Amino acid sequence: MWANQRFKRVLAVSFDYGQRHDVELKAAQTICRELDVPHETIQIPLLSQLTKNALTDRSVAIDAGHPEGANPYSRLPSTFVDGRNAVFLLTAAIYAKQRGIADLVTGVCQTDYSGYPDCRAPFIKSMQKTLRLAMEYPFRIHTPLMDLTKAETVQLMQKLGGIELIKNTHTCYAGTRPACGKCPACLLRLKGFKEAGVKDPIKYE
Amino acid sequence: MWANQRFKRVLAVSFDYGQRHDVELKAAQTICRELDVPHETIQIPLLSQLTKNALTDRSVAIDAGHPEGANPYSRLPSTFVDGRNAVFLLTAAIYAKQRGIADLVTGVCQTDYSGYPDCRAPFIKSMQKTLRLAMEYPFRIHTPLMDLTKAETVQLMQKLGGIELIKNTHTCYAGTRPACGKCPACLLRLKGFKEAGVKDPIKYE
Repeated sequence: MWANQRFKRVLAVSFDYGQRHDVELKAAQTICRELDVPHETIQIPLLSQLTKNALTDRSVAIDAGHPEGANPYSRLPSTFVDGRNAVFLLTAAIYAKQRGIADLVTGVCQTDYSGYPDCRAPFIKSMQKTLRLAMEYPFRIHTPLMDLTKAETVQLMQKLGGIELIKNTHTCYAGTRPACGKCPACLLRLKGFKEAGVKDPIKYE
Repeated sequence: MWANQRFKRVLAVSFDYGQRHDVELKAAQTICRELDVPHETIQIPLLSQLTKNALTDRSVAIDAGHPEGANPYSRLPSTFVDGRNAVFLLTAAIYAKQRGIADLVTGVCQTDYSGYPDCRAPFIKSMQKTLRLAMEYPFRIHTPLMDLTKAETVQLMQKLGGIELIKNTHTCYAGTRPACGKCPACLLRLKGFKEAGVKDPIKYE
Protein backbone atom coordinates (compact mmCIF):
# COMPACT_ATOMS: atom_id res chain seq x y z
CA MET A 1 0.00 0.00 0.00
CA TRP A 2 2.93 2.30 0.77
CA ALA A 3 4.35 1.68 -2.71
CA ASN A 4 0.94 1.98 -4.35
CA GLN A 5 0.57 5.53 -3.04
CA ARG A 6 4.04 6.55 -4.22
CA PHE A 7 4.53 4.88 -7.60
CA LYS A 8 2.44 4.65 -10.75
CA ARG A 9 3.23 1.04 -11.38
CA VAL A 10 3.90 -1.58 -8.72
CA LEU A 11 4.93 -5.20 -9.17
CA ALA A 12 5.26 -7.53 -6.19
CA VAL A 13 7.65 -10.47 -5.92
CA SER A 14 7.88 -13.13 -3.25
CA PHE A 15 10.67 -15.66 -2.86
CA ASP A 16 10.20 -19.37 -2.36
CA TYR A 17 13.42 -20.54 -0.75
CA GLY A 18 12.01 -23.68 0.80
CA GLN A 19 10.90 -21.91 3.99
CA ARG A 20 8.78 -23.83 6.50
CA HIS A 21 6.42 -20.89 6.60
CA ASP A 22 5.55 -21.03 2.89
CA VAL A 23 2.04 -20.04 3.88
CA GLU A 24 3.47 -16.50 3.68
CA LEU A 25 3.63 -16.91 -0.11
CA LYS A 26 -0.11 -17.50 -0.29
CA ALA A 27 -0.73 -14.64 2.11
CA ALA A 28 1.25 -12.31 -0.18
CA GLN A 29 -0.72 -13.50 -3.18
CA THR A 30 -4.05 -12.90 -1.45
CA ILE A 31 -3.07 -9.42 -0.30
CA CYS A 32 -1.75 -8.45 -3.75
CA ARG A 33 -4.98 -9.66 -5.37
CA GLU A 34 -7.00 -7.44 -3.03
CA LEU A 35 -4.74 -4.50 -3.85
CA ASP A 36 -4.81 -5.27 -7.58
CA VAL A 37 -1.00 -5.53 -7.70
CA PRO A 38 0.54 -8.19 -10.01
CA HIS A 39 2.39 -10.73 -7.86
CA GLU A 40 5.01 -13.27 -8.82
CA THR A 41 6.79 -15.91 -6.75
CA ILE A 42 10.42 -16.55 -7.73
CA GLN A 43 11.98 -19.91 -6.87
CA ILE A 44 15.31 -19.69 -5.02
CA PRO A 45 16.24 -23.30 -4.19
CA LEU A 46 19.84 -22.16 -3.67
CA LEU A 47 19.41 -20.91 -0.10
CA SER A 48 18.20 -24.22 1.31
CA GLN A 49 20.77 -26.08 -0.81
CA LEU A 50 23.68 -24.02 0.49
CA THR A 51 22.82 -23.27 4.10
CA LYS A 52 21.74 -25.11 7.21
CA ASN A 53 19.19 -23.17 9.25
CA ALA A 54 15.95 -23.58 11.13
CA LEU A 55 13.77 -21.87 8.52
CA THR A 56 14.38 -24.33 5.70
CA ASP A 57 15.49 -27.42 7.60
CA ARG A 58 12.98 -29.06 9.91
CA SER A 59 15.75 -30.94 11.70
CA VAL A 60 17.02 -27.61 13.11
CA ALA A 61 15.10 -26.19 16.08
CA ILE A 62 13.90 -22.58 16.11
CA ASP A 63 15.73 -20.63 18.82
CA ALA A 64 13.72 -18.45 21.14
CA GLY A 65 16.64 -16.12 21.80
CA HIS A 66 20.27 -15.90 20.73
CA PRO A 67 21.77 -19.07 22.17
CA GLU A 68 25.52 -19.40 22.18
CA GLY A 69 26.77 -21.82 19.58
CA ALA A 70 23.45 -22.24 17.77
CA ASN A 71 25.18 -21.39 14.52
CA PRO A 72 28.57 -23.03 14.01
CA TYR A 73 30.26 -19.78 12.93
CA SER A 74 28.69 -17.15 15.10
CA ARG A 75 26.04 -16.53 17.71
CA LEU A 76 23.37 -15.68 15.19
CA PRO A 77 20.04 -17.40 15.90
CA SER A 78 19.27 -20.65 14.08
CA THR A 79 16.59 -18.84 12.07
CA PHE A 80 19.25 -16.74 10.33
CA VAL A 81 19.56 -17.75 6.68
CA ASP A 82 22.98 -16.62 5.45
CA GLY A 83 22.71 -14.00 2.77
CA ARG A 84 18.92 -14.14 2.54
CA ASN A 85 18.16 -10.45 2.09
CA ALA A 86 21.16 -10.01 -0.20
CA VAL A 87 19.83 -12.80 -2.43
CA PHE A 88 16.31 -11.34 -2.33
CA LEU A 89 17.44 -7.81 -3.19
CA LEU A 90 19.85 -8.89 -5.91
CA THR A 91 17.18 -11.07 -7.51
CA ALA A 92 14.58 -8.33 -7.24
CA ALA A 93 17.03 -5.84 -8.78
CA ILE A 94 17.71 -8.06 -11.80
CA TYR A 95 13.96 -8.67 -12.16
CA ALA A 96 13.21 -4.96 -11.88
CA LYS A 97 15.88 -3.77 -14.32
CA GLN A 98 14.53 -6.12 -16.98
CA ARG A 99 11.22 -4.27 -16.60
CA GLY A 100 12.71 -0.79 -16.57
CA ILE A 101 12.15 -0.36 -12.81
CA ALA A 102 14.79 1.17 -10.51
CA ASP A 103 12.86 1.48 -7.24
CA LEU A 104 12.92 -1.50 -4.88
CA VAL A 105 10.78 -1.55 -1.74
CA THR A 106 11.54 -4.01 1.06
CA GLY A 107 10.01 -4.46 4.50
CA VAL A 108 13.22 -4.97 6.47
CA CYS A 109 13.30 -3.38 9.89
CA GLN A 110 16.21 -2.88 12.25
CA THR A 111 14.23 -1.98 15.35
CA ASP A 112 13.06 -5.53 15.88
CA TYR A 113 16.59 -6.62 15.00
CA SER A 114 16.65 -10.30 15.95
CA GLY A 115 20.38 -10.51 15.36
CA TYR A 116 19.95 -10.40 11.58
CA PRO A 117 22.71 -8.23 10.12
CA ASP A 118 20.99 -8.07 6.73
CA CYS A 119 18.04 -6.13 8.15
CA ARG A 120 20.11 -3.11 9.15
CA ALA A 121 20.46 0.23 7.37
CA PRO A 122 24.26 -0.03 6.77
CA PHE A 123 23.74 -3.28 4.87
CA ILE A 124 20.91 -1.79 2.77
CA LYS A 125 23.00 1.28 1.94
CA SER A 126 25.96 -0.85 0.88
CA MET A 127 23.71 -3.20 -1.08
CA GLN A 128 22.22 -0.27 -3.00
CA LYS A 129 25.68 0.94 -3.96
CA THR A 130 26.74 -2.58 -4.99
CA LEU A 131 23.64 -3.05 -7.17
CA ARG A 132 24.25 0.29 -8.91
CA LEU A 133 27.88 -0.59 -9.60
CA ALA A 134 27.05 -4.15 -10.71
CA MET A 135 24.49 -3.14 -13.33
CA GLU A 136 25.10 0.56 -13.97
CA TYR A 137 21.50 1.28 -13.11
CA PRO A 138 20.13 3.88 -10.66
CA PHE A 139 18.59 1.48 -8.16
CA ARG A 140 17.01 2.93 -5.04
CA ILE A 141 16.14 0.66 -2.13
CA HIS A 142 13.23 1.97 -0.07
CA THR A 143 12.78 0.69 3.49
CA PRO A 144 9.63 2.33 4.89
CA LEU A 145 9.62 0.08 7.97
CA MET A 146 13.34 0.38 8.80
CA ASP A 147 13.05 2.47 11.94
CA LEU A 148 9.50 1.72 13.00
CA THR A 149 8.62 -0.36 16.02
CA LYS A 150 6.10 -3.12 15.36
CA ALA A 151 3.46 -0.93 17.01
CA GLU A 152 4.30 1.91 14.61
CA THR A 153 4.05 -0.51 11.67
CA VAL A 154 0.52 -1.43 12.79
CA GLN A 155 -0.28 2.28 13.08
CA LEU A 156 1.15 2.94 9.59
CA MET A 157 -1.12 0.25 8.22
CA GLN A 158 -4.11 1.92 9.86
CA LYS A 159 -3.08 5.28 8.39
CA LEU A 160 -2.81 3.79 4.90
CA GLY A 161 -6.29 2.32 5.30
CA GLY A 162 -5.08 -1.26 5.21
CA ILE A 163 -6.27 -2.59 8.53
CA GLU A 164 -8.69 -4.92 6.73
CA LEU A 165 -5.75 -6.63 5.06
CA ILE A 166 -4.16 -7.56 8.36
CA LYS A 167 -6.22 -10.73 8.62
CA ASN A 168 -4.36 -12.04 5.56
CA THR A 169 -0.85 -11.37 6.83
CA HIS A 170 1.43 -14.12 8.05
CA THR A 171 4.25 -13.79 10.54
CA CYS A 172 4.76 -17.15 12.32
CA TYR A 173 8.09 -18.86 11.60
CA ALA A 174 6.63 -22.28 12.34
CA GLY A 175 4.33 -21.71 9.36
CA THR A 176 1.24 -22.96 11.14
CA ARG A 177 -2.23 -21.47 10.76
CA PRO A 178 -3.48 -20.69 13.36
CA ALA A 179 -0.10 -19.19 14.29
CA CYS A 180 1.96 -20.82 17.04
CA GLY A 181 2.06 -17.67 19.21
CA LYS A 182 5.39 -18.76 20.69
CA CYS A 183 8.14 -18.30 18.09
CA PRO A 184 10.18 -15.05 18.13
CA ALA A 185 8.22 -13.70 15.14
CA CYS A 186 4.82 -14.33 16.78
CA LEU A 187 5.93 -12.83 20.09
CA LEU A 188 7.18 -9.68 18.36
CA ARG A 189 3.94 -9.35 16.40
CA LEU A 190 1.72 -9.79 19.46
CA LYS A 191 3.75 -7.22 21.39
CA GLY A 192 3.40 -4.75 18.49
CA PHE A 193 -0.38 -5.04 18.28
CA LYS A 194 -0.69 -4.76 22.04
CA GLU A 195 1.40 -1.58 22.14
CA ALA A 196 -0.53 -0.11 19.21
CA GLY A 197 -3.81 -0.82 21.01
CA VAL A 198 -5.13 -2.77 18.02
CA LYS A 199 -6.59 -6.27 18.20
CA ASP A 200 -4.63 -8.74 16.05
CA PRO A 201 -7.32 -10.29 13.80
CA ILE A 202 -5.41 -13.53 13.01
CA LYS A 203 -5.98 -16.69 15.01
CA TYR A 204 -3.46 -18.17 17.44
CA GLU A 205 -3.28 -21.75 18.69
CA MET B 1 47.27 -22.22 -9.06
CA TRP B 2 47.48 -18.72 -7.62
CA ALA B 3 45.18 -19.74 -4.77
CA ASN B 4 46.96 -23.06 -4.29
CA GLN B 5 50.21 -21.27 -3.56
CA ARG B 6 48.61 -18.89 -1.06
CA PHE B 7 46.09 -20.95 0.89
CA LYS B 8 46.26 -24.30 2.69
CA ARG B 9 42.88 -25.43 1.50
CA VAL B 10 41.27 -24.51 -1.81
CA LEU B 11 37.78 -25.37 -3.07
CA ALA B 12 36.70 -24.44 -6.58
CA VAL B 13 33.14 -23.64 -7.66
CA SER B 14 31.76 -23.08 -11.13
CA PHE B 15 28.31 -21.76 -11.97
CA ASP B 16 25.94 -23.29 -14.46
CA TYR B 17 23.62 -20.46 -15.43
CA GLY B 18 22.51 -21.92 -18.74
CA GLN B 19 25.41 -20.37 -20.67
CA ARG B 20 25.94 -21.37 -24.30
CA HIS B 21 29.56 -21.96 -23.51
CA ASP B 22 28.91 -24.63 -20.88
CA VAL B 23 32.02 -26.36 -22.17
CA GLU B 24 33.80 -24.03 -19.73
CA LEU B 25 32.31 -26.08 -16.87
CA LYS B 26 34.01 -29.24 -18.13
CA ALA B 27 37.23 -27.30 -18.71
CA ALA B 28 37.16 -26.12 -15.09
CA GLN B 29 36.56 -29.67 -13.89
CA THR B 30 39.49 -31.02 -15.93
CA ILE B 31 41.87 -28.32 -14.71
CA CYS B 32 40.83 -28.79 -11.06
CA ARG B 33 41.36 -32.53 -11.36
CA GLU B 34 44.89 -31.97 -12.63
CA LEU B 35 45.55 -29.57 -9.77
CA ASP B 36 43.95 -31.91 -7.21
CA VAL B 37 41.47 -29.20 -6.15
CA PRO B 38 37.90 -30.29 -5.26
CA HIS B 39 35.49 -28.76 -7.77
CA GLU B 40 31.74 -28.26 -7.60
CA THR B 41 29.29 -26.84 -10.13
CA ILE B 42 26.40 -24.90 -8.64
CA GLN B 43 23.18 -24.55 -10.63
CA ILE B 44 21.92 -20.97 -11.04
CA PRO B 45 18.88 -21.25 -13.35
CA LEU B 46 17.76 -17.82 -12.12
CA LEU B 47 19.99 -15.76 -14.42
CA SER B 48 18.61 -17.20 -17.64
CA GLN B 49 15.07 -17.11 -16.22
CA LEU B 50 15.27 -13.44 -15.32
CA THR B 51 17.40 -11.86 -18.03
CA LYS B 52 17.53 -11.73 -21.79
CA ASN B 53 21.08 -11.81 -23.13
CA ALA B 54 23.22 -13.42 -25.79
CA LEU B 55 25.05 -15.78 -23.43
CA THR B 56 22.03 -17.77 -22.30
CA ASP B 57 19.58 -17.14 -25.12
CA ARG B 58 20.47 -18.43 -28.57
CA SER B 59 17.93 -16.10 -30.18
CA VAL B 60 20.08 -13.11 -29.18
CA ALA B 61 23.13 -12.41 -31.37
CA ILE B 62 26.57 -11.90 -29.83
CA ASP B 63 27.73 -8.32 -30.41
CA ALA B 64 31.21 -7.73 -31.71
CA GLY B 65 31.42 -4.29 -30.14
CA HIS B 66 29.14 -2.07 -28.10
CA PRO B 67 26.26 -1.38 -30.46
CA GLU B 68 23.81 1.31 -29.55
CA GLY B 69 20.51 -0.05 -28.36
CA ALA B 70 21.64 -3.68 -28.16
CA ASN B 71 20.34 -3.80 -24.62
CA PRO B 72 16.95 -2.14 -24.10
CA TYR B 73 18.10 -0.19 -21.03
CA SER B 74 21.66 0.78 -21.81
CA ARG B 75 24.43 0.43 -24.32
CA LEU B 76 25.96 -2.61 -22.65
CA PRO B 77 26.81 -5.39 -25.11
CA SER B 78 24.30 -8.20 -25.60
CA THR B 79 26.68 -10.60 -23.84
CA PHE B 80 26.23 -8.71 -20.56
CA VAL B 81 24.24 -10.81 -18.09
CA ASP B 82 22.71 -8.45 -15.54
CA GLY B 83 24.10 -9.07 -12.09
CA ARG B 84 26.15 -12.10 -13.08
CA ASN B 85 29.25 -11.49 -10.98
CA ALA B 86 27.15 -10.27 -8.07
CA VAL B 87 25.19 -13.54 -8.15
CA PHE B 88 28.41 -15.57 -8.46
CA LEU B 89 30.16 -13.80 -5.58
CA LEU B 90 27.13 -13.85 -3.30
CA THR B 91 26.59 -17.55 -3.95
CA ALA B 92 30.29 -18.32 -3.45
CA ALA B 93 30.27 -16.32 -0.20
CA ILE B 94 27.32 -18.27 1.23
CA TYR B 95 28.97 -21.52 0.10
CA ALA B 96 32.30 -20.48 1.63
CA LYS B 97 30.92 -19.33 4.97
CA GLN B 98 29.18 -22.67 5.47
CA ARG B 99 32.63 -24.24 5.18
CA GLY B 100 34.40 -21.74 7.43
CA ILE B 101 36.14 -20.01 4.51
CA ALA B 102 36.39 -16.20 4.25
CA ASP B 103 38.72 -15.79 1.25
CA LEU B 104 37.10 -15.65 -2.19
CA VAL B 105 39.22 -15.62 -5.35
CA THR B 106 37.73 -14.50 -8.66
CA GLY B 107 39.28 -14.02 -12.08
CA VAL B 108 37.56 -10.75 -12.98
CA CYS B 109 39.69 -8.25 -14.85
CA GLN B 110 39.02 -4.62 -15.61
CA THR B 111 41.76 -4.10 -18.21
CA ASP B 112 39.92 -6.08 -20.85
CA TYR B 113 36.78 -4.32 -19.69
CA SER B 114 34.23 -5.17 -22.37
CA GLY B 115 31.71 -2.77 -20.94
CA TYR B 116 30.97 -5.07 -17.99
CA PRO B 117 30.57 -2.93 -14.88
CA ASP B 118 30.71 -5.97 -12.59
CA CYS B 119 34.33 -6.68 -13.56
CA ARG B 120 35.67 -3.42 -12.14
CA ALA B 121 37.46 -2.81 -8.85
CA PRO B 122 34.87 -0.37 -7.42
CA PHE B 123 32.18 -3.03 -7.78
CA ILE B 124 34.36 -5.70 -6.13
CA LYS B 125 35.21 -3.38 -3.24
CA SER B 126 31.55 -2.53 -2.67
CA MET B 127 30.54 -6.19 -3.00
CA GLN B 128 33.07 -7.20 -0.34
CA LYS B 129 31.66 -4.62 2.06
CA THR B 130 28.09 -5.73 1.31
CA LEU B 131 28.93 -9.40 1.92
CA ARG B 132 30.59 -8.57 5.24
CA LEU B 133 27.58 -6.54 6.38
CA ALA B 134 25.08 -9.14 5.14
CA MET B 135 26.59 -12.06 7.01
CA GLU B 136 28.84 -10.52 9.67
CA TYR B 137 31.76 -12.48 8.34
CA PRO B 138 35.24 -11.21 7.36
CA PHE B 139 35.06 -11.96 3.64
CA ARG B 140 37.99 -10.93 1.47
CA ILE B 141 37.61 -10.93 -2.30
CA HIS B 142 40.91 -11.52 -4.10
CA THR B 143 41.24 -10.49 -7.75
CA PRO B 144 44.74 -11.48 -8.93
CA LEU B 145 43.93 -10.70 -12.57
CA MET B 146 42.18 -7.35 -11.98
CA ASP B 147 44.84 -5.08 -13.46
CA LEU B 148 46.66 -7.48 -15.74
CA THR B 149 46.47 -7.33 -19.50
CA LYS B 150 45.66 -10.63 -21.16
CA ALA B 151 49.36 -10.90 -22.10
CA GLU B 152 50.33 -10.47 -18.44
CA THR B 153 47.81 -13.15 -17.46
CA VAL B 154 49.52 -15.57 -19.87
CA GLN B 155 52.88 -14.58 -18.37
CA LEU B 156 51.54 -15.11 -14.82
CA MET B 157 50.45 -18.59 -15.83
CA GLN B 158 53.94 -19.31 -17.12
CA LYS B 159 55.45 -18.03 -13.88
CA LEU B 160 53.17 -20.26 -11.79
CA GLY B 161 54.23 -23.22 -13.93
CA GLY B 162 50.78 -23.74 -15.38
CA ILE B 163 51.41 -23.38 -19.09
CA GLU B 164 50.57 -27.07 -19.60
CA LEU B 165 47.07 -26.40 -18.30
CA ILE B 166 46.38 -23.80 -20.98
CA LYS B 167 45.26 -26.44 -23.46
CA ASN B 168 42.29 -27.18 -21.16
CA THR B 169 41.10 -23.61 -20.80
CA HIS B 170 38.03 -22.30 -22.53
CA THR B 171 37.32 -18.72 -23.52
CA CYS B 172 34.98 -18.67 -26.55
CA TYR B 173 31.52 -17.21 -25.90
CA ALA B 174 30.01 -19.24 -28.74
CA GLY B 175 30.95 -22.35 -26.74
CA THR B 176 32.33 -24.20 -29.74
CA ARG B 177 35.39 -26.44 -29.66
CA PRO B 178 37.46 -25.68 -31.68
CA ALA B 179 36.86 -22.08 -30.63
CA CYS B 180 35.18 -19.67 -33.06
CA GLY B 181 38.10 -17.22 -33.10
CA LYS B 182 35.75 -14.35 -33.88
CA CYS B 183 33.73 -13.49 -30.75
CA PRO B 184 35.01 -10.68 -28.47
CA ALA B 185 36.36 -13.23 -25.96
CA CYS B 186 38.33 -15.16 -28.60
CA LEU B 187 39.78 -11.99 -30.12
CA LEU B 188 40.92 -10.75 -26.72
CA ARG B 189 42.53 -14.11 -25.93
CA LEU B 190 44.36 -14.32 -29.25
CA LYS B 191 45.65 -10.79 -28.84
CA GLY B 192 46.93 -11.63 -25.34
CA PHE B 193 48.87 -14.69 -26.42
CA LYS B 194 50.32 -12.81 -29.36
CA GLU B 195 51.54 -9.97 -27.15
CA ALA B 196 52.96 -12.42 -24.61
CA GLY B 197 54.85 -14.20 -27.36
CA VAL B 198 53.29 -17.54 -26.41
CA LYS B 199 51.55 -19.89 -28.83
CA ASP B 200 47.93 -20.52 -27.86
CA PRO B 201 47.68 -24.33 -27.68
CA ILE B 202 43.90 -24.56 -28.19
CA LYS B 203 42.40 -25.15 -31.61
CA TYR B 204 40.50 -22.54 -33.59
CA GLU B 205 38.03 -23.11 -36.41
